[in-house]
Amino acid sequence: MVKAGIIGSTGYAGQELVRILLNHPDVEIVWYGSKSYIDKRYSEVFGNMFQIVDNVCLGEDINKLAGQADVIFTATPQGLCSSLVNEEILSQVKIIDLSADFRIKDIGKYEKWYGIKHQSPSFIKEAVYGLCEINREDIKNARLIANPGCFPTCTVLSIYPLAKEGLIDMDTVIVDAKSGVSGAGRGAKTANLYCEVNESIKPYGVAVHRHTPEIEDQLSYASGEDVVINFTPHLVPMNRGILATSYAKLKEKLPYNEVKEIYDKYYKDEYFVRVLDENVFPETRWVEGSNFVDVNFKIDGRTGRIIMMGAIDNVVKGAAGQAVQNMNILYGFKENTGLDIVPLFP
Amino acid sequence: MVKAGIIGSTGYAGQELVRILLNHPDVEIVWYGSKSYIDKRYSEVFGNMFQIVDNVCLGEDINKLAGQADVIFTATPQGLCSSLVNEEILSQVKIIDLSADFRIKDIGKYEKWYGIKHQSPSFIKEAVYGLCEINREDIKNARLIANPGCFPTCTVLSIYPLAKEGLIDMDTVIVDAKSGVSGAGRGAKTANLYCEVNESIKPYGVAVHRHTPEIEDQLSYASGEDVVINFTPHLVPMNRGILATSYAKLKEKLPYNEVKEIYDKYYKDEYFVRVLDENVFPETRWVEGSNFVDVNFKIDGRTGRIIMMGAIDNVVKGAAGQAVQNMNILYGFKENTGLDIVPLFP
Amino acid sequence: MVKAGIIGSTGYAGQELVRILLNHPDVEIVWYGSKSYIDKRYSEVFGNMFQIVDNVCLGEDINKLAGQADVIFTATPQGLCSSLVNEEILSQVKIIDLSADFRIKDIGKYEKWYGIKHQSPSFIKEAVYGLCEINREDIKNARLIANPGCFPTCTVLSIYPLAKEGLIDMDTVIVDAKSGVSGAGRGAKTANLYCEVNESIKPYGVAVHRHTPEIEDQLSYASGEDVVINFTPHLVPMNRGILATSYAKLKEKLPYNEVKEIYDKYYKDEYFVRVLDENVFPETRWVEGSNFVDVNFKIDGRTGRIIMMGAIDNVVKGAAGQAVQNMNILYGFKENTGLDIVPLFP
Amino acid sequence: MVKAGIIGSTGYAGQELVRILLNHPDVEIVWYGSKSYIDKRYSEVFGNMFQIVDNVCLGEDINKLAGQADVIFTATPQGLCSSLVNEEILSQVKIIDLSADFRIKDIGKYEKWYGIKHQSPSFIKEAVYGLCEINREDIKNARLIANPGCFPTCTVLSIYPLAKEGLIDMDTVIVDAKSGVSGAGRGAKTANLYCEVNESIKPYGVAVHRHTPEIEDQLSYASGEDVVINFTPHLVPMNRGILATSYAKLKEKLPYNEVKEIYDKYYKDEYFVRVLDENVFPETRWVEGSNFVDVNFKIDGRTGRIIMMGAIDNVVKGAAGQAVQNMNILYGFKENTGLDIVPLFP
Repeated sequence: MVKAGIIGSTGYAGQELVRILLNHPDVEIVWYGSKSYIDKRYSEVFGNMFQIVDNVCLGEDINKLAGQADVIFTATPQGLCSSLVNEEILSQVKIIDLSADFRIKDIGKYEKWYGIKHQSPSFIKEAVYGLCEINREDIKNARLIANPGCFPTCTVLSIYPLAKEGLIDMDTVIVDAKSGVSGAGRGAKTANLYCEVNESIKPYGVAVHRHTPEIEDQLSYASGEDVVINFTPHLVPMNRGILATSYAKLKEKLPYNEVKEIYDKYYKDEYFVRVLDENVFPETRWVEGSNFVDVNFKIDGRTGRIIMMGAIDNVVKGAAGQAVQNMNILYGFKENTGLDIVPLFP
Repeated sequence: MVKAGIIGSTGYAGQELVRILLNHPDVEIVWYGSKSYIDKRYSEVFGNMFQIVDNVCLGEDINKLAGQADVIFTATPQGLCSSLVNEEILSQVKIIDLSADFRIKDIGKYEKWYGIKHQSPSFIKEAVYGLCEINREDIKNARLIANPGCFPTCTVLSIYPLAKEGLIDMDTVIVDAKSGVSGAGRGAKTANLYCEVNESIKPYGVAVHRHTPEIEDQLSYASGEDVVINFTPHLVPMNRGILATSYAKLKEKLPYNEVKEIYDKYYKDEYFVRVLDENVFPETRWVEGSNFVDVNFKIDGRTGRIIMMGAIDNVVKGAAGQAVQNMNILYGFKENTGLDIVPLFP
Repeated sequence: MVKAGIIGSTGYAGQELVRILLNHPDVEIVWYGSKSYIDKRYSEVFGNMFQIVDNVCLGEDINKLAGQADVIFTATPQGLCSSLVNEEILSQVKIIDLSADFRIKDIGKYEKWYGIKHQSPSFIKEAVYGLCEINREDIKNARLIANPGCFPTCTVLSIYPLAKEGLIDMDTVIVDAKSGVSGAGRGAKTANLYCEVNESIKPYGVAVHRHTPEIEDQLSYASGEDVVINFTPHLVPMNRGILATSYAKLKEKLPYNEVKEIYDKYYKDEYFVRVLDENVFPETRWVEGSNFVDVNFKIDGRTGRIIMMGAIDNVVKGAAGQAVQNMNILYGFKENTGLDIVPLFP
Repeated sequence: MVKAGIIGSTGYAGQELVRILLNHPDVEIVWYGSKSYIDKRYSEVFGNMFQIVDNVCLGEDINKLAGQADVIFTATPQGLCSSLVNEEILSQVKIIDLSADFRIKDIGKYEKWYGIKHQSPSFIKEAVYGLCEINREDIKNARLIANPGCFPTCTVLSIYPLAKEGLIDMDTVIVDAKSGVSGAGRGAKTANLYCEVNESIKPYGVAVHRHTPEIEDQLSYASGEDVVINFTPHLVPMNRGILATSYAKLKEKLPYNEVKEIYDKYYKDEYFVRVLDENVFPETRWVEGSNFVDVNFKIDGRTGRIIMMGAIDNVVKGAAGQAVQNMNILYGFKENTGLDIVPLFP
């Protein structure tokens, strides 16, 4: 039985970790960490957990926690995990960090886009970027896993096969993404009030969103080129879900079947990546509550572009679910243990 | 391995049966019945099932189905199940009917409220009303189970302890209920279009809703009186969930603790019924996707009334979940097998 | 041209006042008061006002404001208006208070339900309760108008004719109300975040909501009895709208036509109160953005009760619209000046 | 007093025409045409119109209608208007067609994208494309106006200044658009049911949407080039609103101020087009219920692209509002007569 501790268990991603781990046959949650709700019963914060979780919230004392847990999930704002990690901690426990602290290898890039100073740069190199379908082998032996961002997960997986195979012009990649509101977190901000978000769609972080360099890094690794993209996220009035619609020029004309084969080459054995049938496009409702990534593409012969689409549940494959998938890889469990969830509809 | 067939698997309740049964360790779905989608792949109708269910939809030939299944769920409009049931069928399979056909013992009452002629009145007496927490013993040996309606499940369970103990004046019971839109079914009607339902709340079926006699029957059995109530459902712009707010006069003044003890007496060993803490009231979000019934009450000393509240997911405990719970009882499985679902939030 | 000042113009009710007054032919807004956004351009707070309102937000200096305005609207939290009002101010300007400070004549009752000390009790008696359809004559000469609460407006108007005519047993009145989220205000609270409210319905303030005594007072005046009721509000995932479903015993059997005549007697000349056709029930979508109150009733012969239903837009007839209606009465304008708004659908 | 007739008054755009025209001081609606609701009272179809509109729905007899009206709005499916128009009709009345029948000058292109045969090709040349801000002069004397599509209106107005000035590479234009559900019409389709649309976002019509050639035509006229674009619409769970996010390469580096001046050059005197402040981006909530088009842009120096964004209310500026704006131009009314609506929030 793997003992898991969660720092930041009272945010949306943290709560989802709890939901998923409660159904995991090989894991026991030993620490419900929180900054705002210390000593409060967890089920008072989240009524869904009533009579399921009896624990009270503990703080963020990582030393104490490291003595009790085998693996620690940090579902916290940027900067916290990097301030907690050190050799002593990593010698005791595995850490799966859901924040951005260890996702970007170039510390200058990290500090510029996030506007904060990195607290433990010495561990950046060691950290493995936990995009499971791509970095599975490296994840197996990692001590510190940088769990990918929600937009990067969805975007990279929907573009990856074509970038890897060199079939699209990487200078032409444009990503237009749409996210549900849970991605904005549980902090009490006027901008995220029901009446402010409901019945509206808006772009945000135009040309400056922090997930841009993360996507660019991963697409650069895949293509072997230095990729610079346009990335525009939008806020959609729904609880969960990310849809990424990406555009690129095909280097040469390709028929549907050839592109389909390429997607299948990379994903046919991937449990969580579902390449949809021709002309069936991803919709967030079909992945809600699950760890699936639905992807598909459409070739536009008129413009010579290909439109690559992906849908995930941002709280699951975009956060907690992928974190558990990483943990499964770390411990040699079957990769979908606790994650073989049928999406909830409607 | 129990072999299950579903007639009406392409409605919302039918699809939810599939979602739940896919996670049930002791059940195999052998028949995906449908009226509108025969020969179509099930996963084309419901994209969440892509790469999970490979079956195509079959028709509603109950004779053929009875030869292949151990248990049949009918998640169909009123009148269909009663037209299919006969001795030969019941001698081969168990039937769990999610429609109203066998819920009301008085055939005259059924025909009056539903406006249709009952097709197999001889089986009404035999059918067991599958409100599991109350009729568990009778369910065990039933051949034909009338799975309760969504409003009755929520309402009856939140009032039952006080009705049974004779603590409220049954002549004063008023039930004001609120339902998500999935309760209206998947039929293509203008009234259920997104733009018609969104951003609005409305009452419907005022004083004439068909769940009224079903609630009255159950409260009559509980109290030993002939109960007549007011029941007013309202349509709420959300996918899932029912909240029932019920009012009654307390026969005599009672302190909080005594009433709490009575609720606990009936429900403390019930896995699915959660009696909330004092002054914490049911909210549909805390039961979404699960089979839980959250109940609580508030005594209003000023008026001498007690307000009894209950929340369920109408598609789960109000339909498919309770149907599986009934099946679990029928086959002697642990009652929450396949149903120990942590509610999804947000 | 009436000069209007608004204290609290950056809340939802305050902003709606601006929207309505901008279309009022006889009014000019001279003061956009705010606590949180002083010196900020109003159109930066509310993007809908871009290129429509050029003003910057001012503070809450009522002395200065009283020198510039003819009428002041206070759309502020409880307690503020009563702390600002005095004889000097009232000798200069009319005040229409959208808070509860002057709605309840019994100061003890006010202080008990609201939990705050009243700052200017000497003006309580003078203040006129601005439920226009009922107190029109008194409003004409008032200096200080207590604009009614949203739930009381909707509830009282839907019950009033029967209470006034003595046709219902006032001891049996139960009000089950449902409100959109704008009623909770624009403050940054976790409980009102999109993801907390969306896809859920919940009761709140059960048996203790502050609008209870206000409703009771008005029903007492109407019926000539000391009325005590049950009032339960619920939060509905939509921006705007209140639906009140009220129940009472009819003192004697009455046919539909007689009750309809009584409603018509009170409302046939009222522009804003629409008594719907038989078996057509109020829905909040049909009044959105307007000052209408849609009411109707259903007699339930089985229980001897009558169900009285009303729908309003809580931000308009429940707040800003009724405030303007009061202003129109005060200044002898046609009562629907600036308020002849066709409801927005969908 | 202009006499207006509406064919298709019981769809969403038709109903919005009614809402707007009821507030127009110079127009009287003389004909509420409908296919599905003939002889039914209009206010029974749309409860918001109760006690406002007393008319019953009439049919689609354009000859009779042409004898009674000065101007006819056709808010009907593609193909109907072109089947009704002829010289006799046009000699009697002005026609403003909200469908696509006369928007595309190349009949072959129309028939290919719409899959239907054009019924009155001889009038295509005469018809004026009613994008008011661009074709104002031609509209003034038109007999037949092709009211633009919702996506084209939003997209073209947000790109127009840069296309016209030749500052962007037209070969690189990509339009990613998002629409509320009212754009799908009021027909009873499963795909538009509340539970199918709510809590999900999806792309549709990828690379084949019918508004593509309309956008291309207009951008071609503006730029003087033969423009081919990518256009991907998405369905967003909200009633109203369109947001278009468009991407293009700048031909040369430009500072913010220069681009801003170009937008201002075209729009500073346009009442309905609001060029937002720097780094304030369009959100559909700020234009709801109004005829405004909010536009802005962001230069991304990293990629050399410019992101052009626009937001409209699809039912107003994207349909009924622009139709009335066209009518105002036709009759020499002030262009915002009846359209100086403050957007509704929240």
